[in-house]
Amino acid sequence: MAGSTFGTLFRVTTAGESHGPGNVCIVDGCPPGLPLSVDDLIPDLQRRKPGQSRITTPRKEDDTPEILSGVFEGRTTGTPIAILIRNQDQRSRDYGDIKDKYRPGHADFTFDAKFGFRDYRGGGRSSARETSVRVAAAAIAKKLLHTAHGIQILGMVDQVGDIVADIPDVTKITLEQVESNDVRCPDAEAAAKMEQLIKDVRKQQDSIGGAAKVVALNVPAGWGEPVFDKLRADLGKAMFSLPAVLGVEFGQGFGVANTRGTGHSDTFVPEPGKAPPIATDTNRHGGMLGGISSGMPIVLRCAVKPTSSIPQDRPTVDKDGNATTLATKGRHDPCLLPRFVPMAEAMMAITLADHMLRQRTMG
Amino acid sequence: MAGSTFGTLFRVTTAGESHGPGNVCIVDGCPPGLPLSVDDLIPDLQRRKPGQSRITTPRKEDDTPEILSGVFEGRTTGTPIAILIRNQDQRSRDYGDIKDKYRPGHADFTFDAKFGFRDYRGGGRSSARETSVRVAAAAIAKKLLHTAHGIQILGMVDQVGDIVADIPDVTKITLEQVESNDVRCPDAEAAAKMEQLIKDVRKQQDSIGGAAKVVALNVPAGWGEPVFDKLRADLGKAMFSLPAVLGVEFGQGFGVANTRGTGHSDTFVPEPGKAPPIATDTNRHGGMLGGISSGMPIVLRCAVKPTSSIPQDRPTVDKDGNATTLATKGRHDPCLLPRFVPMAEAMMAITLADHMLRQRTMG
Amino acid sequence: MAGSTFGTLFRVTTAGESHGPGNVCIVDGCPPGLPLSVDDLIPDLQRRKPGQSRITTPRKEDDTPEILSGVFEGRTTGTPIAILIRNQDQRSRDYGDIKDKYRPGHADFTFDAKFGFRDYRGGGRSSARETSVRVAAAAIAKKLLHTAHGIQILGMVDQVGDIVADIPDVTKITLEQVESNDVRCPDAEAAAKMEQLIKDVRKQQDSIGGAAKVVALNVPAGWGEPVFDKLRADLGKAMFSLPAVLGVEFGQGFGVANTRGTGHSDTFVPEPGKAPPIATDTNRHGGMLGGISSGMPIVLRCAVKPTSSIPQDRPTVDKDGNATTLATKGRHDPCLLPRFVPMAEAMMAITLADHMLRQRTMG
Amino acid sequence: MAGSTFGTLFRVTTAGESHGPGNVCIVDGCPPGLPLSVDDLIPDLQRRKPGQSRITTPRKEDDTPEILSGVFEGRTTGTPIAILIRNQDQRSRDYGDIKDKYRPGHADFTFDAKFGFRDYRGGGRSSARETSVRVAAAAIAKKLLHTAHGIQILGMVDQVGDIVADIPDVTKITLEQVESNDVRCPDAEAAAKMEQLIKDVRKQQDSIGGAAKVVALNVPAGWGEPVFDKLRADLGKAMFSLPAVLGVEFGQGFGVANTRGTGHSDTFVPEPGKAPPIATDTNRHGGMLGGISSGMPIVLRCAVKPTSSIPQDRPTVDKDGNATTLATKGRHDPCLLPRFVPMAEAMMAITLADHMLRQRTMG
Repeated sequence: MAGSTFGTLFRVTTAGESHGPGNVCIVDGCPPGLPLSVDDLIPDLQRRKPGQSRITTPRKEDDTPEILSGVFEGRTTGTPIAILIRNQDQRSRDYGDIKDKYRPGHADFTFDAKFGFRDYRGGGRSSARETSVRVAAAAIAKKLLHTAHGIQILGMVDQVGDIVADIPDVTKITLEQVESNDVRCPDAEAAAKMEQLIKDVRKQQDSIGGAAKVVALNVPAGWGEPVFDKLRADLGKAMFSLPAVLGVEFGQGFGVANTRGTGHSDTFVPEPGKAPPIATDTNRHGGMLGGISSGMPIVLRCAVKPTSSIPQDRPTVDKDGNATTLATKGRHDPCLLPRFVPMAEAMMAITLADHMLRQRTMG
Repeated sequence: MAGSTFGTLFRVTTAGESHGPGNVCIVDGCPPGLPLSVDDLIPDLQRRKPGQSRITTPRKEDDTPEILSGVFEGRTTGTPIAILIRNQDQRSRDYGDIKDKYRPGHADFTFDAKFGFRDYRGGGRSSARETSVRVAAAAIAKKLLHTAHGIQILGMVDQVGDIVADIPDVTKITLEQVESNDVRCPDAEAAAKMEQLIKDVRKQQDSIGGAAKVVALNVPAGWGEPVFDKLRADLGKAMFSLPAVLGVEFGQGFGVANTRGTGHSDTFVPEPGKAPPIATDTNRHGGMLGGISSGMPIVLRCAVKPTSSIPQDRPTVDKDGNATTLATKGRHDPCLLPRFVPMAEAMMAITLADHMLRQRTMG
Repeated sequence: MAGSTFGTLFRVTTAGESHGPGNVCIVDGCPPGLPLSVDDLIPDLQRRKPGQSRITTPRKEDDTPEILSGVFEGRTTGTPIAILIRNQDQRSRDYGDIKDKYRPGHADFTFDAKFGFRDYRGGGRSSARETSVRVAAAAIAKKLLHTAHGIQILGMVDQVGDIVADIPDVTKITLEQVESNDVRCPDAEAAAKMEQLIKDVRKQQDSIGGAAKVVALNVPAGWGEPVFDKLRADLGKAMFSLPAVLGVEFGQGFGVANTRGTGHSDTFVPEPGKAPPIATDTNRHGGMLGGISSGMPIVLRCAVKPTSSIPQDRPTVDKDGNATTLATKGRHDPCLLPRFVPMAEAMMAITLADHMLRQRTMG
Repeated sequence: MAGSTFGTLFRVTTAGESHGPGNVCIVDGCPPGLPLSVDDLIPDLQRRKPGQSRITTPRKEDDTPEILSGVFEGRTTGTPIAILIRNQDQRSRDYGDIKDKYRPGHADFTFDAKFGFRDYRGGGRSSARETSVRVAAAAIAKKLLHTAHGIQILGMVDQVGDIVADIPDVTKITLEQVESNDVRCPDAEAAAKMEQLIKDVRKQQDSIGGAAKVVALNVPAGWGEPVFDKLRADLGKAMFSLPAVLGVEFGQGFGVANTRGTGHSDTFVPEPGKAPPIATDTNRHGGMLGGISSGMPIVLRCAVKPTSSIPQDRPTVDKDGNATTLATKGRHDPCLLPRFVPMAEAMMAITLADHMLRQRTMG
């Protein structure tokens, strides 16, 4: 049932499979007058695409977007913006095995249970390929947020396996620091270890999980709704809508379970010059109180599972429930985290753009 | 902006503040013919209400629901079901302090930033009082799910402060075990320690955080949508829409960050008699693959922050940003977890009922 | 399936049946700070309620609304406003006949076909009783529109049977003129004939149809969306959502079928002082071009069928499809038009309030 | 603000302008397993496209659709179906005049009032070009409705200027009869006169309005919601969302204004073999009672205004509100009706498909 649209006022609808003609998004609700061209979409698509470094899948996808509507003479018109990214590098190959056998950890079985049959080429609709048009849509959201409020959104890898980055202040990290290594971890020392670990697990025909942080700076106080559409709730949904995410936490996150009230609540302090002139001395709350932005940086963290595609022969079942074995062939990321960073930024941006427009209705 | 509705087909809309005349919900989309009376709503409302035990707030709320529509001759008619719970025990008191000063950790400041002013009596719309009508609505969802598929939903406290329960198999826990102590932790030994800890922090005029697990049994394979409306994403939003939740994880959760693919993916195995006749040998995936239910138990865990209301004098600011101090008076839970359990079950039930109806459109 | 909500940003959700405990609406999305009290809701409820004059049903309903939430110290808080109108004057009577036999022209049969069974007391959910809470919700919308833009909405009866009012300029009619007679027709001469006709058909145990016009003044140019959510489309849906409406037309309406382009298109003319300084010399377009408001008065007309409830014995069928006869007892309006006027104004107001908020997102 | 999506469960989102790269739709919610190929989309696109006969615009558009997703091995997969129709025949020309001057009857002025600027080439987003992808989407809806319930949808021209067709029984008309002449009027004699009238007004550099009927056969009783989402209300919105529609009526339509209850209500009669075994002897109600389908044919009628584009020099204003004159150049339909027929069928089909899926949630 119709579940391919995200957002209430800044609405992103996507369509497309990994091995069909292409992926499309329609961004409906972007205000008019925002300068926009294809060039604005390229940088984040480059960060998301496969084949960008030695630790991502060597699969090549060109990811060239075409804007089909909603932009005239270099500016958005306020009408829906459709973006098409055609699929390429679709090697003709034999999918016979995964057509009838269920890959462990993948959505093959659940798609069949839901729809009765599925496009078994690659991941079909469940492939991370679908996120390409989310990233394209989010480039518009990022530009809108930055133009209107100077908002900056930045993701970074925080953990790969047992290696945890040392990031004293996530709000001070720059895009350059993140992009300075293939892992997208701003702690250069940890990044080197992570890269080695990723290469090791690939050599061992295995994969590895990790975690990423995403930060949004300059979000004004007052965004988000009090009850169901808390900014926290919509950001949580946004992150869990990305492939492979099994955990999301804000601010102090799961650490609050073992924290006392005196150790958790941040203290409000005067901050002359800010509007309103109020801040908190610490940011354990992660930028939202009661689900509404506090004017402090929004900070969240996602746990990402290890790639399920592993070239080892593993036991599984076929469509009829008979025991069998299967080795996932093809070219896959041994660790999803480096390419997850722009995807998570994208969902943060789309969610914030939606709530920016929602807040405008306050008048 | 209109953010008080949850769900697409099983839609719950709430209204109400903590100290106004009452709270209301309208449940739109419940199929006709479900046997329903006020008695169905009482048990979970009793579990949620304040004053139920020595470790919750002594504040008394009667929480008597009235069904205003949508039920005729003991059955739902298919038209919207409105439920009213009037507020009582509203002590007339002086709210002068919290009218102009911002309580640390509360939504007072962010409400003012959003709306310009607020109902400052109690938490107003951000009070946990609002969850009473969610719990009432969820009693309908629970009955619908159980009648149609035998689905059972059960929450339990998993952690309070540094005390973590030992629950070998969450899918085997019964409601009786959960309700056997005031903490709602099925590990009796841990429960006793948790209860003592809660009493201690209260004595110290402090509060304490914790974590709860929620389990849904018998959810058929195939519920949830592939992309934005993943079952995982909607459950994530559901949980984060509850007060005080700073983290949500499914299955292996944050543990996946330090796990290899070979250590995470569950193995599909034949399970004759099940429809389809397939299961996984373990349930590290938490009951959803690609965002779609796998037929295995759905298992999630939430981190809940310590109550922000503490009767200690703490520094803060007033509405104009001037430094001041404030002690939160009133009667509050030193630990939210015991009463959080039915709230989390409620949001699980509402979300599953929605996806149950969505799956029916497959035909 | 969940269809009891109207609007995107100014959202009205209703619940309730004619003979249950009461009707409820939740208005979600009303901006904060609007002065509001129960007194604002009374006047239009009085205009809608039964028993107000000699040509409406003598049935008495008290229609006293209670605001349950969303208003604090005399102003809206920005949170949802719930309004309850309890049912009264529910004579205990024998519904045996209409329980099993289908009243011609009523929704009894279609409700059974949809839901399998129904609340057969009165019209249940299909009763015009449900519109009481729409009218209450619309009083808020009217006040919001008038406060923000000086918008005025006025309905009037244009036709009853073969008597058509002579209204030279609908934009000049006042509320006083409309309310000066029981029919709510500003042409006093026609009104007198209409009243006589209504009395005649009642005497003949029959009923009569008619038409009403609704006008909105001072709607700024630019409201409405280009494609599906044209203002015209949403107003059309709004009117067709009212009981008994079988036709809706804007501006020249069905007259355009026999009109040439040179005879239809209104000419743009300078109008200094207006913003933008442009008007049309005539208003055959009815205030919207391309589905977007033009700054000219919005004018629409609705055709309303004669009441289906007639105290004559008529042939029909029972639930099993056997031929039988039935006379509709009870107290009914011989002509719906006088009470339809405030209902139509209500849906106009709710729709415009929604698009007013939508336009704010343009920035 | 995001208004480019229609439907709740069978959701159609469109994007595109008349002179940009192309138009796109995403159909989300189509159930899996429906046989579908591009060939299914062609026939109605041919009926809609310009240049098809001597009485439509000679402008040529190729209208070749490409299915980008959601179909695999000849069947729908249940995932969103994206369809792209590229624009062609975009003569490079001088748009200088309509860039700064407002064409009477067009949306130029209201677009500028809404968005601040617009794509002034052709009608941009308000062009009937946008309906091409609606017609493509509707071909899927038609196939779904026909496969599941044998539903047939057929539109026909009923009036052009003062020539009204004589159609004794709209439910007996065939597609062949409609397509037997260029006007799409099943009354051959009237069709000939209409064709002559259209040629005459074109010669006179004028245009002419008209009306069309749309019929849906075999819609089961029980579709539609009782209150806001009445089937009648959603069909009304659907029709008013099409360009140039100023009036919509169902069944007896505006005729009810001068009809008595005894002359309007259709009589329920036994109809053995039907499920349920009940029909009405006449169909003045137009197939819906209380907004819910009755199992009788759904019959509606739309009034369509004369094309606003006329090659005569007419007075108007420029963007600054200065008086000026303008003659609309380009190639336009002198009468919209022949091409309106497939557009109206399309919106009927999309609306019914949505309510078909909604009814499935009843269980």
